[in-house]
Amino acid sequence: MRAALDAAVQAAAAGEVPVGAAVVLDGRILAVAANAPRTRHDPTAHAEMLAIRAAAEAIGGDRLSDCDLWVTLEPCAMCAGAIAHARIARLYYGASDPKGGAVEHGPRLFAQPTIHHRPEIYPGIGEGEAAALLREFFAARR
Amino acid sequence: MRAALDAAVQAAAAGEVPVGAAVVLDGRILAVAANAPRTRHDPTAHAEMLAIRAAAEAIGGDRLSDCDLWVTLEPCAMCAGAIAHARIARLYYGASDPKGGAVEHGPRLFAQPTIHHRPEIYPGIGEGEAAALLREFFAARR
Repeated sequence: MRAALDAAVQAAAAGEVPVGAAVVLDGRILAVAANAPRTRHDPTAHAEMLAIRAAAEAIGGDRLSDCDLWVTLEPCAMCAGAIAHARIARLYYGASDPKGGAVEHGPRLFAQPTIHHRPEIYPGIGEGEAAALLREFFAARR
Repeated sequence: MRAALDAAVQAAAAGEVPVGAAVVLDGRILAVAANAPRTRHDPTAHAEMLAIRAAAEAIGGDRLSDCDLWVTLEPCAMCAGAIAHARIARLYYGASDPKGGAVEHGPRLFAQPTIHHRPEIYPGIGEGEAAALLREFFAARR
């Protein structure tokens, strides 16, 4: 989660909502990414998506079956869907997101009967620091 | 939808589930893409995602506010989330997907109170041809 939090700080420095993510396999970091939709001109460029894509490229397949995803914010529906497609084994996340989250809020995607894969889910990891980054970012923009 | 259906045929030829998508602005096709997660080693490489990403790159921004998305299959949660993030104005799709769809099935994402953007939705466009492509693809694999 340290790498994901550092990526979130980088996102904020680039004017992006501070969210970071890392994909880990057997204790080794395969990919780390910072949220970057504005910088990259890509509405799909959330931290989780970029980390999943980079990790899949690194292992040369479209499934990350034994991998863990660490992310500083509760994933949205797009990212939760990608986590299911990638067959991520364990999802660790920091701050809850009542507005945009799709794990414990909104569509609660992994609780849907049609979901084809459910990772183990560990919320609240590094939550204090992740939430503080978001609060500071939005406070500075007001 | 013709361009999206042609892309679906190309996906099948590459051994991918036959789904195609196109992003259109003012009657002009900005991007066409075929489903390609296996070929690209990218679990997020659904046709809609690739078309949205290419269109956003083409216009140099992360919002496709006046654009329409045409896709041969009901979008999944990941793609429906991306459609909302991209602010797609109108969504036209072909075949329904009771197992993986997230528009009229499963989480019914655009009906969720927390969704931040809802496109106009037109299902069943080119449905016969889109569904036949999928049936033939899966029949050949059995």
